[in-house]
Amino acid sequence: MTESEFLVPGVSDVAQAAARIAPWAHRTPVVTCSALDERAGRRLYFKCEQFQKVGAFKFRGACNAVMALTDEEASRGCITHSSGNHAQAVALAAALRGVPAYIVMPSTATSVKRAAVVGYGAEVIDCEPTLIARETTAAEVRDRTGAHFVHPYDDFHVIAGQGTAARELVEEVPALAALVAPVGGGGLLAGTILACGDRAVFAGEPAGADDAYRSLKAGTLIPQTAPRTVADGLLTSVGRRNWAIIHPGVQDIVRVSEAQIVDAMELLWTRAKLLVEASSAVALAAVLAPEFRDLPGLDDVGIILSGGNVDVRRLPWA
Amino acid sequence: MTESEFLVPGVSDVAQAAARIAPWAHRTPVVTCSALDERAGRRLYFKCEQFQKVGAFKFRGACNAVMALTDEEASRGCITHSSGNHAQAVALAAALRGVPAYIVMPSTATSVKRAAVVGYGAEVIDCEPTLIARETTAAEVRDRTGAHFVHPYDDFHVIAGQGTAARELVEEVPALAALVAPVGGGGLLAGTILACGDRAVFAGEPAGADDAYRSLKAGTLIPQTAPRTVADGLLTSVGRRNWAIIHPGVQDIVRVSEAQIVDAMELLWTRAKLLVEASSAVALAAVLAPEFRDLPGLDDVGIILSGGNVDVRRLPWA
Repeated sequence: MTESEFLVPGVSDVAQAAARIAPWAHRTPVVTCSALDERAGRRLYFKCEQFQKVGAFKFRGACNAVMALTDEEASRGCITHSSGNHAQAVALAAALRGVPAYIVMPSTATSVKRAAVVGYGAEVIDCEPTLIARETTAAEVRDRTGAHFVHPYDDFHVIAGQGTAARELVEEVPALAALVAPVGGGGLLAGTILACGDRAVFAGEPAGADDAYRSLKAGTLIPQTAPRTVADGLLTSVGRRNWAIIHPGVQDIVRVSEAQIVDAMELLWTRAKLLVEASSAVALAAVLAPEFRDLPGLDDVGIILSGGNVDVRRLPWA
Repeated sequence: MTESEFLVPGVSDVAQAAARIAPWAHRTPVVTCSALDERAGRRLYFKCEQFQKVGAFKFRGACNAVMALTDEEASRGCITHSSGNHAQAVALAAALRGVPAYIVMPSTATSVKRAAVVGYGAEVIDCEPTLIARETTAAEVRDRTGAHFVHPYDDFHVIAGQGTAARELVEEVPALAALVAPVGGGGLLAGTILACGDRAVFAGEPAGADDAYRSLKAGTLIPQTAPRTVADGLLTSVGRRNWAIIHPGVQDIVRVSEAQIVDAMELLWTRAKLLVEASSAVALAAVLAPEFRDLPGLDDVGIILSGGNVDVRRLPWA
C-alpha cells in the first residue's frame, strides 16, 4: 500500500459514491415506531438496509468500488473472498458492470450462499475454511486474472459507499442529533462518520467481539481473537483504514450482551415489524442500554439497520 | 339504515379521508424486490401497511371514521367489537381524538391483545366468544353510553379510510396497471377500488374462505360459513356496503390454497425481508398463481400488504 492510499476520504467522497451508485442501489425507506420510541426515551429513525439489494448495506460499498474502476481495470474483473453478504454484493456489482467476478468461498459455505453468488453469474473458487487459505487462494486468482480485489471493509471506496446509507438518512431527517451503527470490520461505522459531518456517531458492539471498544479505550488498534456472538456479521476485527476514521470520529462505543441483542432483535420484529439480522439489532440494543439512555439531549436518533439475511427457520428466541 | 347511507362513496371520499387522517397515520413505504419480480414475471410494488400504526391498514379506516364524527358525536365515545387489529385501531384513534373507547372482546382474546387495547386507554368489556354475544354486548354498551359504533369493514368511512393506502401507492407509482389486495370483510378491497379510478383491481382470497369469489361468480352476496385458513384476518364474510363496491368494481378474485399462502409468506420474509402476516401473503400468492401470471400486460402491479401482526414464535413453516 502506498502512502497516498492512506489519505483518509471525506464527506465529498461519500457524495461521489452516492452519485456513482444511484443508478444501481435502492434508496431504502426510513421507518419509525412509537413503541420503540417509548422504550428508548427519544425518537428513533430506522434506516432499512434489509431492503437494499442483496438484503444488506454491503451492496453500497461493493457497488461504489466496482463502479469506480476504470474500464481497463474493470475489464479484468473483480475478486473477493467471503462467505456472506459481501460475496453477493461484489458478484451483483460486477454483473451490473458487465465484468467477471471471482468469489473465493470456504468449502463450509452453505449451498444457499453459493447458489446466490452463482445466480449473479460469478465464478466460485473453493478453498479450505481458514483465513490463510482464503487469502492465498484469492491472491493466486488475482495474479492469474489481474482482477481487482474488493476488500469487504478495509477499502476507502467501500467505506465511502457504506456511508451513503447515513447520507440518505440525514437528508431525509435533518433534525437527527446522532446516528448509531453496529461495528464489525468498521466499514459501515466509518462511512457513517464520514457522511454525518458534525453529528455525533455512536457504535453498538457485541461484548463477545469487542475489539473496537477495547481499541478505542486503549487508543490503539487491537485485533479480535476468538469472537463469540449471535451477531455473526460482527465477528471480524476492525480494519486499518476503518480505524483511521473511527478512532478520531466516533463519539463512543456501547457494548451489549447476547441477551440485549436478542431482546432488541425481537423488539424490532414484533413491535416495529422490521425483519433484521442480529447484527442490525446490536445498534438498537446499544440505544436501549442504560449508558445510552442516560445521555442528555439527542431527541432524534438515527439507527442504521444493516441487513435482513437471517434464517427464519432458526430464530434466536425459538 | 337509511337509504342515504347507501349512497356509495367515490374517489373524493378517499381524498377527504386522506386529508383527515394525514396528521395521525403513517405514510408507509413502498418496497420492491427483484427476486419476487422474477417469480411474478412483472414488476411488483409492495405497499407496506405492516409499518402503519397498530401494525396494519386497519388504523386508516378506524381513524377516518373517528375523526369524521362531529365533536358532539365524538364526545360520547366510540365502540366496536373485535379481538384483533380493528380493536387496537379504534382504541388508538379514540385516544388521539381524546374521547372514550369501549371495546367488546371475547373472553378468548389473548392477554397480549387485551393489554394492547388497554394500553391505548380503552375500556375493555368482556363477552362470550360468539358473534351474537359480541353484538348484543356492543348494543347494550352503545345504548348505555351513546357511543358511536365503528364497524370493522361494513362502513363507508372505514372503506374510504382503507382506500388511502392504495391512493398513496398510485401517487408514488403512477405507472401501475393493476392493484391487488386480500379480501376478507372487504374494507381494504372496496377502498382500493374507490381509490384507483380506471386501474384494474384484483383480489386474492383463501380457497378455505372464498365467499367473495363465490359471490362474484353467483352475482349475489353469499355469506361465509365454516371458514378454514391460516390467513386469520380473512375469515369473515364480505359486508353489504363492501359488496356494493366490490361487485361492480373488482376485475377478478383469485383463490389460493393454504400451501400457496404459506409459500408466498415465506418468500416475502426470506427474499423481500417483509415481515407480514399470512393475510398479506394472500395477495402475493394470487399474483404468483398461474391464472394471474398468464394475464397479458400488467407490467407494473401494486400489492397492498395488509399488516404484520404475527406470532414470531409460531410461524406456519416451522
